[in-house]
Amino acid sequence: MAQWNNLDTLQAYQAMKKENYSVNLTEAMAGEAGARRVAEYQVPMAAGLAYNYAAKQVDGKVLEQLCALAKECCLAEKFEELYNGAVINTGEKRLVLHQLTRGQLGNDVVCDGVNKRAFYLEQQKKIADFARKVHSGEIVNEKGEKFRTVVQIGIGGSDLGPRAMYLALENWAKKNNFFKMEAKFISNVDPDDAAGVLNGTDPEKAIFVLVSKSGTTLETLTNEAFVKDALKNKGLDASKHMIAVTSETSPLASSSDYLAAFFMDDYIGGRYSSTSAVGGAVLSLAFGPEIFERFLQGAAAEDKLSAETDPMKNPAMLDALIGVYERNILGYPATAVLPYSQALSRFPAHLQQVDMESNGKSVNRFGEPVGYPTGPVIFGEPGTNGQHSFYQLLHQGTDTVPLQFVGFRKSQIETDVDIQGSTSQQKLCANVAAQIMAFACGKEDENRNKFFAGNRPSSIIVGDQLTPEALGALLSHFENKVMFQGFLWNLNSFDQEGVQLGKVLAKRVLAHDTDGALKAYSDLLNI
Amino acid sequence: MAQWNNLDTLQAYQAMKKENYSVNLTEAMAGEAGARRVAEYQVPMAAGLAYNYAAKQVDGKVLEQLCALAKECCLAEKFEELYNGAVINTGEKRLVLHQLTRGQLGNDVVCDGVNKRAFYLEQQKKIADFARKVHSGEIVNEKGEKFRTVVQIGIGGSDLGPRAMYLALENWAKKNNFFKMEAKFISNVDPDDAAGVLNGTDPEKAIFVLVSKSGTTLETLTNEAFVKDALKNKGLDASKHMIAVTSETSPLASSSDYLAAFFMDDYIGGRYSSTSAVGGAVLSLAFGPEIFERFLQGAAAEDKLSAETDPMKNPAMLDALIGVYERNILGYPATAVLPYSQALSRFPAHLQQVDMESNGKSVNRFGEPVGYPTGPVIFGEPGTNGQHSFYQLLHQGTDTVPLQFVGFRKSQIETDVDIQGSTSQQKLCANVAAQIMAFACGKEDENRNKFFAGNRPSSIIVGDQLTPEALGALLSHFENKVMFQGFLWNLNSFDQEGVQLGKVLAKRVLAHDTDGALKAYSDLLNI
Repeated sequence: MAQWNNLDTLQAYQAMKKENYSVNLTEAMAGEAGARRVAEYQVPMAAGLAYNYAAKQVDGKVLEQLCALAKECCLAEKFEELYNGAVINTGEKRLVLHQLTRGQLGNDVVCDGVNKRAFYLEQQKKIADFARKVHSGEIVNEKGEKFRTVVQIGIGGSDLGPRAMYLALENWAKKNNFFKMEAKFISNVDPDDAAGVLNGTDPEKAIFVLVSKSGTTLETLTNEAFVKDALKNKGLDASKHMIAVTSETSPLASSSDYLAAFFMDDYIGGRYSSTSAVGGAVLSLAFGPEIFERFLQGAAAEDKLSAETDPMKNPAMLDALIGVYERNILGYPATAVLPYSQALSRFPAHLQQVDMESNGKSVNRFGEPVGYPTGPVIFGEPGTNGQHSFYQLLHQGTDTVPLQFVGFRKSQIETDVDIQGSTSQQKLCANVAAQIMAFACGKEDENRNKFFAGNRPSSIIVGDQLTPEALGALLSHFENKVMFQGFLWNLNSFDQEGVQLGKVLAKRVLAHDTDGALKAYSDLLNI
Repeated sequence: MAQWNNLDTLQAYQAMKKENYSVNLTEAMAGEAGARRVAEYQVPMAAGLAYNYAAKQVDGKVLEQLCALAKECCLAEKFEELYNGAVINTGEKRLVLHQLTRGQLGNDVVCDGVNKRAFYLEQQKKIADFARKVHSGEIVNEKGEKFRTVVQIGIGGSDLGPRAMYLALENWAKKNNFFKMEAKFISNVDPDDAAGVLNGTDPEKAIFVLVSKSGTTLETLTNEAFVKDALKNKGLDASKHMIAVTSETSPLASSSDYLAAFFMDDYIGGRYSSTSAVGGAVLSLAFGPEIFERFLQGAAAEDKLSAETDPMKNPAMLDALIGVYERNILGYPATAVLPYSQALSRFPAHLQQVDMESNGKSVNRFGEPVGYPTGPVIFGEPGTNGQHSFYQLLHQGTDTVPLQFVGFRKSQIETDVDIQGSTSQQKLCANVAAQIMAFACGKEDENRNKFFAGNRPSSIIVGDQLTPEALGALLSHFENKVMFQGFLWNLNSFDQEGVQLGKVLAKRVLAHDTDGALKAYSDLLNI
């Protein structure tokens, strides 16, 4: 059994902290030595992707120390325990099984007499059957017409991941004739969210996917009622337009209010549920179950790489180690995720949840306060858009923000124009290459306003094209990176107690059971 | 003339820095004293909005110090110089006149023999006439049919602001019968952005707005070519489908390639151009010129409040002062913008540009390095969505992130459901009230995993409904807040030299004029 210790008790960490050593990129990335770094500082990922960390402030010495840290922290063993079914989520006393929704790395995980891999596969198959029947016209609306739109009702993990994945593959699916139906998403309790989406949707030909593990999420149940109201007002039978994705023990599981119910369970955290039924239903309906399966295969292949014990061959582990080095040794407070792909427009928002909800914590897995910074602020927008926006601060601001680029050699739709001797795709790629070097090496200038200090670290995940497999690999990479960072910080990355207090207080406000400042704010907002 | 000095040379700042004093919110916001703070710590804004800072770590003493700082830094005088036409943008030797696009606070500003207020009004009027002709069917496509969609082609300030404003008013306009035509946006040089938007658009009935001040922005010209290609392929005459928004000296200004050209000038920075022709064309086409005019009126009224010399009556100035206090005295590295309004889904992305591009700088207005932190990282998503995502870190992470909430008592569409005794809108408002108090006061718990330390500061801008006037006031508030912070940090907030180096290197990549690591990255990306 691996030992769970705080980061600052580990000798490898203490040694690094004491030395406080880092590489200056303005020197390291210059000339042919820089070119060699680009060639050497790269780890293959699944689906033809690669993680390149040449522009990180590391060298052989730092990497050696990080490998020692990985070993002392038992990162590989901890992941092994996780995928073999240990109770890694100590707070809620739960297994952590989202990897099982896309493959199996270790032993059979049997829980309450159920083989969990078989259970997740069964759900995937049920969803595939259902989706095929919707596509073929076997499952239709009251008038016998085909459904044309799928609307996901969910929030947090039931929204951000599936939405980001849908947007990531929408144009690819259209281009490659896999597109079955448009997906829309309702999440916010703000009534304008549901009303706005419904205004642009023909409810008669829409199928709604209600997603809530517990079956008790305030926003989701409220939006369900909102949608049912709208369906009723059109004279439609809501139970013929809705399916549920929930846990088997939830009130939604066996309700006659739904055409069908598909299951996840307590061992899959919301933010890790994109590869479960939560992502499966909407993505299989939108693109067909074969595409969802390809997405899972990409994630499974990447998971396999994450099980590699040598950090130098394990991109997620290495990325995690470098991130902790930047956060705890170099003291950088935030990380930007910058995909050079418009299709990944909401991928940073999903990672924001995956990362900040998992590791934005101040106590270790035993409930003891930790004495070092944990999860950073995560933010990002697609490039080149961000270049014309917040990159100013990234280049010349007073704080250093580590950057995580993503780029693909080919576009998804592959329609392009050649202007001034290059295509748009080439311009896109040229820009990400240029940015990495501008951040790393900077530029001398006598006019300090035009001076770039450089030495601003970045990595890039490079791939050929954003396919379902590549997307799955990308998702798995970041999920596993966050997991390894949780191991390093000795956190329980799989609960989210920080979201509870607000819920309790909101209920008190709605019950008018308030006094003091809470009552004053309630009055201010006319509640 | 006001003196321009570095923040750390100001006595008021030095005194605060030395004392390092702050209010503990867990105490200050408790009981009836907390309720009194909510009542007292509020400044009226325009359009019925109010800025409430009860849950900031300030009290009478801190506020007095901040007022002294404002006075010593001559904030009001500097704004006065700005709106009277001083060369505030020292780097580019330009006036800063975006406030003149919506009103006039001081003397006539005459530049190159032109009264600038009259010039901006003339452009607004020309746009209004054009939009009315499009709406009435006087300006039509080749077949004599009405245009149904407007597509903005622009990036950075020509995209984020107009897009955020469009989304903010889309549902309101539909609900109130002001909606004229759908707007779409193409920004990224990624060819999938243009191709994806065009795939969902009937180009025959679309009017394209090409927005580039210089007329040389790589992404925008490339996307123009992309769109022209698509129009040509459909046998359409591109010049009958395109208008330009640019400066009078740009190559686009007098081209016969466009149905019409509308002008901005060098005195309006891209990120401050939402109230100029840049926002005016697309918003007037989408909602009608009357709605755009109401948006401008809201901004003008808020600008007027920003000219108030007493910080306690000037919400933007007070917000700016508290932000600098949090950044430089309390040492917080980031700020989250959290609108409880789905319509403001892209408002944080716009503010991210306004703030980070303006104040993400390390040298003062004279080109000398500053020795203190300047602009923070800005990020955010709408509530309640964020509550189910990154709020975990905000509540229990190891860093304190100041929060900027926005909330409205009424929804825009006003379709709602009553579930468990409350409407969705009430639930939305209850949640923002609850969050403010959860962040401020926290919660004791023997289980440290369920413990909330509290003392996490926030402010809220509260309004009745997100109308065009309220949106204008909100925009002006943040623009002016950022301006005042630039004054405090002694920065030139109106240039963006940090975006230049990447452009230069990208050109070299495309010309294959590279070596070393830049060539290695170019090869990696197959350019």
